[in-house]
Amino acid sequence: MTVFQKINSFLKDNLRRRKLRSLIFNSDTKAGRKFDIILLTLILSSVILVILESMPEIGSYHPDLFYVIDWMFTILFSIEYLLRVYSAEKRHKYIFSSWGIIDLLSILPTYLSLIVFSYHYLLVIRILRLLRVFRILRLFNFTREGQVLLGALKRSMYKILVFISFLLIFVILIGTLMYVIEHGNPGFNSIPASIYWAIVTVTTVGFGDIVPITYMGKFLASMIMLSGYAIIAVPTGIVTVELARSKRSALQCRNCKYSVESFHNYCSNCGTAVHVVEK
Amino acid sequence: MTVFQKINSFLKDNLRRRKLRSLIFNSDTKAGRKFDIILLTLILSSVILVILESMPEIGSYHPDLFYVIDWMFTILFSIEYLLRVYSAEKRHKYIFSSWGIIDLLSILPTYLSLIVFSYHYLLVIRILRLLRVFRILRLFNFTREGQVLLGALKRSMYKILVFISFLLIFVILIGTLMYVIEHGNPGFNSIPASIYWAIVTVTTVGFGDIVPITYMGKFLASMIMLSGYAIIAVPTGIVTVELARSKRSALQCRNCKYSVESFHNYCSNCGTAVHVVEK
Amino acid sequence: MTVFQKINSFLKDNLRRRKLRSLIFNSDTKAGRKFDIILLTLILSSVILVILESMPEIGSYHPDLFYVIDWMFTILFSIEYLLRVYSAEKRHKYIFSSWGIIDLLSILPTYLSLIVFSYHYLLVIRILRLLRVFRILRLFNFTREGQVLLGALKRSMYKILVFISFLLIFVILIGTLMYVIEHGNPGFNSIPASIYWAIVTVTTVGFGDIVPITYMGKFLASMIMLSGYAIIAVPTGIVTVELARSKRSALQCRNCKYSVESFHNYCSNCGTAVHVVEK
Amino acid sequence: MTVFQKINSFLKDNLRRRKLRSLIFNSDTKAGRKFDIILLTLILSSVILVILESMPEIGSYHPDLFYVIDWMFTILFSIEYLLRVYSAEKRHKYIFSSWGIIDLLSILPTYLSLIVFSYHYLLVIRILRLLRVFRILRLFNFTREGQVLLGALKRSMYKILVFISFLLIFVILIGTLMYVIEHGNPGFNSIPASIYWAIVTVTTVGFGDIVPITYMGKFLASMIMLSGYAIIAVPTGIVTVELARSKRSALQCRNCKYSVESFHNYCSNCGTAVHVVEK
Repeated sequence: MTVFQKINSFLKDNLRRRKLRSLIFNSDTKAGRKFDIILLTLILSSVILVILESMPEIGSYHPDLFYVIDWMFTILFSIEYLLRVYSAEKRHKYIFSSWGIIDLLSILPTYLSLIVFSYHYLLVIRILRLLRVFRILRLFNFTREGQVLLGALKRSMYKILVFISFLLIFVILIGTLMYVIEHGNPGFNSIPASIYWAIVTVTTVGFGDIVPITYMGKFLASMIMLSGYAIIAVPTGIVTVELARSKRSALQCRNCKYSVESFHNYCSNCGTAVHVVEK
Repeated sequence: MTVFQKINSFLKDNLRRRKLRSLIFNSDTKAGRKFDIILLTLILSSVILVILESMPEIGSYHPDLFYVIDWMFTILFSIEYLLRVYSAEKRHKYIFSSWGIIDLLSILPTYLSLIVFSYHYLLVIRILRLLRVFRILRLFNFTREGQVLLGALKRSMYKILVFISFLLIFVILIGTLMYVIEHGNPGFNSIPASIYWAIVTVTTVGFGDIVPITYMGKFLASMIMLSGYAIIAVPTGIVTVELARSKRSALQCRNCKYSVESFHNYCSNCGTAVHVVEK
Repeated sequence: MTVFQKINSFLKDNLRRRKLRSLIFNSDTKAGRKFDIILLTLILSSVILVILESMPEIGSYHPDLFYVIDWMFTILFSIEYLLRVYSAEKRHKYIFSSWGIIDLLSILPTYLSLIVFSYHYLLVIRILRLLRVFRILRLFNFTREGQVLLGALKRSMYKILVFISFLLIFVILIGTLMYVIEHGNPGFNSIPASIYWAIVTVTTVGFGDIVPITYMGKFLASMIMLSGYAIIAVPTGIVTVELARSKRSALQCRNCKYSVESFHNYCSNCGTAVHVVEK
Repeated sequence: MTVFQKINSFLKDNLRRRKLRSLIFNSDTKAGRKFDIILLTLILSSVILVILESMPEIGSYHPDLFYVIDWMFTILFSIEYLLRVYSAEKRHKYIFSSWGIIDLLSILPTYLSLIVFSYHYLLVIRILRLLRVFRILRLFNFTREGQVLLGALKRSMYKILVFISFLLIFVILIGTLMYVIEHGNPGFNSIPASIYWAIVTVTTVGFGDIVPITYMGKFLASMIMLSGYAIIAVPTGIVTVELARSKRSALQCRNCKYSVESFHNYCSNCGTAVHVVEK
C-alpha cells in the first residue's frame, strides 16, 4: 500500500465517520431522523420487554423467548454503541460522558449475566435504557416545553431545598414526639419509623399502614395534617410564581434584546423607549 | 295524486322537518327550551335508573320493574332518535357524527339484550346517555364558564403532557428500583405492580394496599413523597398561570396599543377613551 | 295605676329594652364586649361538653354530671334567648331569622329530651350552638379577613360549580367503567360503590378500603390518578387568580374612587391622570 | 497578687472572653466558621445517634456503645455550653434566652438519666439538639431564602388562621353529623373520633383506618371530599399571592414613583436611570 493509498483510505474513513456521526448523533438530516425514530422504538420495546419479563405470569411462562429477544436487543444496542464510539468526534470524551456511560450500562448487564450468578437483579439495570429516550427527545426539540418547566423548577430549586430542609427538621421533631406518645404502637416502635409516618402524613399520602391509636397521638396527627395545609401551599406558590415569571417576559427590547414586560414604556435595562417586537 | 299535490306534500313535509329540527336541535324557541328540559330530565332519570339497578339490594329486588322502566326509556329515546334522523338537515352527517353515534349507543344495548346473552355488561353501555347531557348544557350556554376552564386546560395541555411524560419515566425508574429493593414483598412482585405503587404514591393518593417494608424501601419512599411536593406544584403552577392569563386583558388600546382589561373605560396608559378592538 | 304611671313604666321598659339590646346585640360598648366574651366562653364550653359526652369512656362514667351541667347551660342559654326575644327591635323578625332559629335549636333538644325517647341523637343537635360562634366573631370584626377569602371563594364559586359538574360526570363514567372491569371485586359490587371509589381516588384521599385488583383496573386507576394531577390544579388555579385579583387593586382613583392598579398612569374608569392615594 | 496584677489578669481574661465570643457566637472570622462547621457536624452526628439508638435492632445490640458515645457528645456539648456562658456578653441574658435554654436542654437529659429512672423518654429530649442547627444556619445566611418563605407565610398566617378556624368549625359539624350517621361503626364511636376522621379526609390524607360503611355516610364523605377541592385551593391561593407579592417590586422610581423591580437599571415607565430608593 503506497502512502497515497493510505491517505486516501484515511480520508475515506474520515468521511465515513463524519457521515455516520451526522446519522447517529444528529437528527437534522432525514436519515438521522429516521435513525432516531427506529432507535426510540427499539429502546421502548426493550424497556417494555424488561417490564413484562418481571411479571411472574409472563416471565416464567416463556423464559427462553425473553432470553432470545433480550440478546437480540443487546446485540443491536452493542452495534449501535460500537458505531457511536467509532464515529464520535472525540472518542474518549464520548465514552466517559454521562451519555456514553448510560449507553454502556444498558448493554453490559446481559453480557455480565453470562459470568455472574445473580442474574435477576443484574438485568434490571437494563431499565436505564429508558434514560436514553431523553437524548432522542432532546434532538426532536420535544423538551423545549420541558425546558420552560425545568427552568422554573431550577430557579425554584434553592427555595424548595430550603423549604425541604425546614420540613425535614419539622418531620424529625414531630416523628420523635409521636414515637414518645405512641409508645407501644408497633408502627411507631422506632424514631425512623415515626419519621416515615410523619412524612407520609405531611405529604398527604396517608398509606394507613401506620396509624396513631392514642388520643394524644390522634390529636397531634390532626394538628400536623392541618398545618400540612399551610405547608403544601409553599412549594406550589414558589413554582407558580416562577412559572408566571417565565411566562410574562415574552417581549424583547429592540436595542439591547433585554426581555421587556408587555406593559412597559421604556426598556428597564437600557432605557430606550420601546416599540417592542415579538420574539 | 297530481304533480301539484306531490310538490305540496313535499313542501309541507319540509316545513314539518324544519319545525321539528328547530324544536329538537335548537333551544332558541320556547318550545325547544321545554323539549330540552324534558329530555334532560329523562336522561338523568334513566342514568339514575342504571345506577340504582346496579345495586345488589335494589336491582335484585324488583328486576321486572327495572326491566319495564328501562324499555319505557328506550322506546322514548328511540322515538327521539328517529325524529332526529328524520329532521336532521343532512341525515348521513348526523348519523355518523359523534353525537349521532352516542345517541344510537344509548338505545342499542336494550335491543341487543334481546339477542345476546351477557345481558349484564351490555346494559352498562347505557351510562353513555350521560354524555348527551353535554349537548343540552351546550345549548343552555352553561358551558361558557367551562369554556374558560377548558381553554386554560387546553393551552396548558401540551406542557402538562410533557410534564406527565417526564413523570412516567420517573415513575418507571422508581418503580423498578422499588421492585429490586422490596424483593420478597408480595405487593412489589413485578415491575408493573411497583410502577402502580409509585403512581399511587407520587400522586399522594396513597391507598395503602401496597406498602414498603424494608428500611431502604421506606427511605426511598420518603424521598419520593418529598420530591412529590415539588412535582405536584408543577401542574398547579401551569394551570394557574394559564387561568391568570385568560383572565387578563385580551384587548388592546386603539391609541397606544397598551393592553387593556375588558372592563376598562379608559386606557390606563394614555387616558384615551377606549372603544377597544379585539387583538 | 294611673295612665301617667303606665306611660312611665312603658318608657322605662323601652329604655331597658334598648339598653339590653345594645348589650346583647352589639359589641360597641364595653359591657357588650364583655357579654360577648362570656357568651363565647359558654358556647365553646357547652360544645366541648357535647363532644366529651359522646366519648364512651367519659360519657358513660359520669352521666349524671353531664346531665346536670347540660341543664345548667340550657337554662343559661334559655334566659339569653328570652332576653333576645324581649329586647329585639322587631320580635317576629328575630324569631324567624336564621340566627333566631339557630338560637332556638341550640336549647330545644334538652327540653325535648324530657318528652321524646331517642335521647341520644336529639342531643347531638346541640352541636349547632357552634354556629352561634360566627355571630360573635362577626361582631369582633374577626371575619374581615374571612370576608376576603369568602369573597374570592364566592366569585370562584360558579366556575368551581361548573368544574364539579364536569367532575361528577367524569366520576360517574369512570365509576361505571371500573364496575365493569373490577367485576367480582366486592368493593366494586355496585355502580355507586365504584363512583365512591372514583371520588376517593380523584380527590387523592385514597382510603384504601376499596382497591382495584385486576391489571386492567390498576391501569385505569393509574390513568385516573395521573389525570387527577391536571384536575386538582383547576380549582387551585381558579381561587388563586381570584385571590390575586382581590389583592391587587389596593389603590383608589382620586377622582372617581375606582380602584387602580399600581402601575397605571391614567384611571381606567374616568381617564384622569392618577397620582393615586393609598386607600 | 498586687492590684496591678489583678487588673492585668482581668484585662487578659476580658480579651480572652471577647476572642472566645467571636469564635463561638459569630462566624465572620475563619476560625468562627470552622467552629460552626465542627459544631454542625457534632450536632447532626448526635441526632443521628439518638435516632439510631431508638431502633430496636440497633439500640438493643450495642447499648453500651451508645451509652459511651452519648456521654462523649454530652461532655463536648457541656464544655461548649460552659464556654458560651463564660464568654457571653451578658451571661444572664444568654442563659435565659431561648437559645440558652435549648442549649441546656440538649445536655441536661444525659445528666438527669443518672438520677431519674425512666431513662428512655428522658433521652428523647436530646432530639432538641436539632433546633441548634438553626442558629448555625442563621449565621451562614442559609436562611435568607427561608426568610422570604417565612415572610410570605407570616403575612399569610392571619388569613390562614381565619381559614383554619372556619375549617375547624366545618370539621366539628361534619364530624358530629358522621357520628350520628355512622352509628354502630366502631371507627365513629365518639365525636372526637369522627372529627379526627373528618380532618384526615378533608386534608386528603386518607389513612383508611376509619372508613364510612353506610350509604348515607359514603354519600356525605363524597360531598366532603369534593368540597375539599375548593377548600385545599384556599391556602395555596393565599400563599401564592403573598409569594408573588414578595417577589414583585419593593422599589420605587425616584422620578415618577413607578414601582421598579429590584433588578432593573432604568425605570420602565419614564426611562430615567434608577438609583432606586427602598420604599
